[in-house]
Amino acid sequence: MTRSELFEQIRRKRSYLCVGLDTDINKIPRYLLDTSDPVFAFNQQIIDATHDLCVAYKPNLAFYESLGVNGWNSLEKTVNYIRYNYPDLFIIADAKRGDIGNTSGMYAKAFFDAMDFDAVTVAPYMGEDSVTPFLTYVGKWVILLALTSNKGAFDFQLMTENGEKLYEKVLKTSQYWGTSDNLMYVVGATKAEMIADIRQLVPDHFLLVPGVGAQGGSLREVTEKGMNDQCGLLVNSSRQIIYASDGEDFAAKAREAAKEVQIEMEALLDAHRLL
Amino acid sequence: MTRSELFEQIRRKRSYLCVGLDTDINKIPRYLLDTSDPVFAFNQQIIDATHDLCVAYKPNLAFYESLGVNGWNSLEKTVNYIRYNYPDLFIIADAKRGDIGNTSGMYAKAFFDAMDFDAVTVAPYMGEDSVTPFLTYVGKWVILLALTSNKGAFDFQLMTENGEKLYEKVLKTSQYWGTSDNLMYVVGATKAEMIADIRQLVPDHFLLVPGVGAQGGSLREVTEKGMNDQCGLLVNSSRQIIYASDGEDFAAKAREAAKEVQIEMEALLDAHRLL
Repeated sequence: MTRSELFEQIRRKRSYLCVGLDTDINKIPRYLLDTSDPVFAFNQQIIDATHDLCVAYKPNLAFYESLGVNGWNSLEKTVNYIRYNYPDLFIIADAKRGDIGNTSGMYAKAFFDAMDFDAVTVAPYMGEDSVTPFLTYVGKWVILLALTSNKGAFDFQLMTENGEKLYEKVLKTSQYWGTSDNLMYVVGATKAEMIADIRQLVPDHFLLVPGVGAQGGSLREVTEKGMNDQCGLLVNSSRQIIYASDGEDFAAKAREAAKEVQIEMEALLDAHRLL
Repeated sequence: MTRSELFEQIRRKRSYLCVGLDTDINKIPRYLLDTSDPVFAFNQQIIDATHDLCVAYKPNLAFYESLGVNGWNSLEKTVNYIRYNYPDLFIIADAKRGDIGNTSGMYAKAFFDAMDFDAVTVAPYMGEDSVTPFLTYVGKWVILLALTSNKGAFDFQLMTENGEKLYEKVLKTSQYWGTSDNLMYVVGATKAEMIADIRQLVPDHFLLVPGVGAQGGSLREVTEKGMNDQCGLLVNSSRQIIYASDGEDFAAKAREAAKEVQIEMEALLDAHRLL
C-alpha cells in the first residue's frame, strides 16, 4: 500500500485508528473456548465489527507465539481473513524484529512472503543492515521503533551525544535507509510532549502511536502535536476496544468503543481541514 | 540450567561450542526435501552428529518463521528432540525479542512455557520492563544484545554519553535487572578488541559470541580476551558447521567441522587451566 492510498483510506473512513489485535486467550469471552480456534473466532468478530471504523489492524506477535503452533496458525488465518474480506486494510505485524542482514531478510520473508502483512515493526539496535532487508519489498513498510510508550523507554532511548538523543539519532540516521513511502516510526502517546519535536525531524513520515487509552496517552494531544497534511498518524488502541466487554456482546461493544474513537478522529481531521 | 551446571558440561565435553541451527530450506541437501519435514530431518541429523561436541544449540527464529506454521512446527519438534534425547544441552531461542512489559511476558511464555528453551536473546532498546519478565522464570536465561557482530552495530551501539558507550550502558544498567546466574550478553566476535573491556564490566557473566567463522572472528582472540574462571563463553558457529557439506554426508561433515572447533576449544580451556 502506498502512502497516498493510506491517506485516501483515512479520508474515506474519517479515521486513523489502528486496532491492536493483542488477543489473549485468557481474556476473551469464555464461550469462545468451545470453538476450534478461539483466538481466530474472536479476531474474526472484532474485525467484522470494526473494519469500517479503522484503517489498520496490528496483531502483536507475542500473543500468538505464546500459544505455539496453534497461535501461529491463528495469526495466519487472521491475516488471510482481513486480506480476503477487507483488502484495503493496512495490516501491521507488531513483531519488533531485527537481526543481522541475512537473518532480517528471513524475517522479511516471514512477514511479507509467507504472510501478507503490509508492515512490520523493527527494533533499531542492530542498525542499518538489520532494517534494510525489509525495505526491498515494494509496497511494504518498516515501522521503526523510535520513542516507545513504556517506562523502560527512558533507560536508553534518551541517551544523549552532542545534544542528540538516541531516538533522534535513530530518526535522522534511518532517513538514509528509507523514505516516507516505506518507513514509519513508533512514537508512544505517553511521550506526547516530544511528538512536536519528532514531527520537525520527520515532517512527512507516518507515526504509529501506541499508548492511547489503557497506557494513558491523549488522542487530542497526540494529534495536535503530530498531525501533518497527509494525516501522518496511525493511532493504535488495543485493550480499550477489543476487551470493551467480556460477554457475548464483545464485538458490538468493541464497535461502540471504536466508533467513539472514530468520531473523535473525524472531528480532529476536520479541524485540520483534511476532510 | 544453572551457571555451574553449564560450566560442568563445558568441562565434561571440553567444549564451549554453540551450534547455530540457522536451517535454511534452500541450503539443506536436496534429498531431504522428499521427507515430510525437511527442516526437522536436517536438524535431527545435525544434532545426533554433534551433541557430544557442543554444549548449546541456538535455532535462529527467523529461519523457522520464514516457513510460516510449518516452520514453527519444525522448531517445536527440534526443541523437543534435543530436550528428550540430550537433556543436558542448553537451548537458546535466538529471537531478539523485546516489547512493553506485559507483552514481553507473553514472549517469555512462548519460549519458556509453550516451548522448553533455556534462554532467549533479547534486544535492549525498550529498556527494563521489556527484559525483566523473562527473568522471573527460575533456571531460565536472558541473553541481552550488547555489541553485535554486524556492520550496523556501529550505527547506534557506540553512541557515547559522558564517555560511556550505549553498549556499555546496556551492560551496566542491566546489572540491576538480573545476575550472572540468569543474564548473559551477546558480544560479536568481530569486535574482539572490545571483549577485554567488556570482560572488565561484567567479570562473571557468560558471553554468547556469534561471528566466529563465516563472519570472520577468531576463536583464539575471543578466548584470550573473554574467558573467565568459569569459562564464561559460549562461542557460536552456524554455517561453517551445519553447511559443511550439501551432500548426503552433511551430518558426518558437520561432525568433522564441530570436532575441529572442539579440539581447538579443548586446547584453549587447557591453556586457561580449566580442565
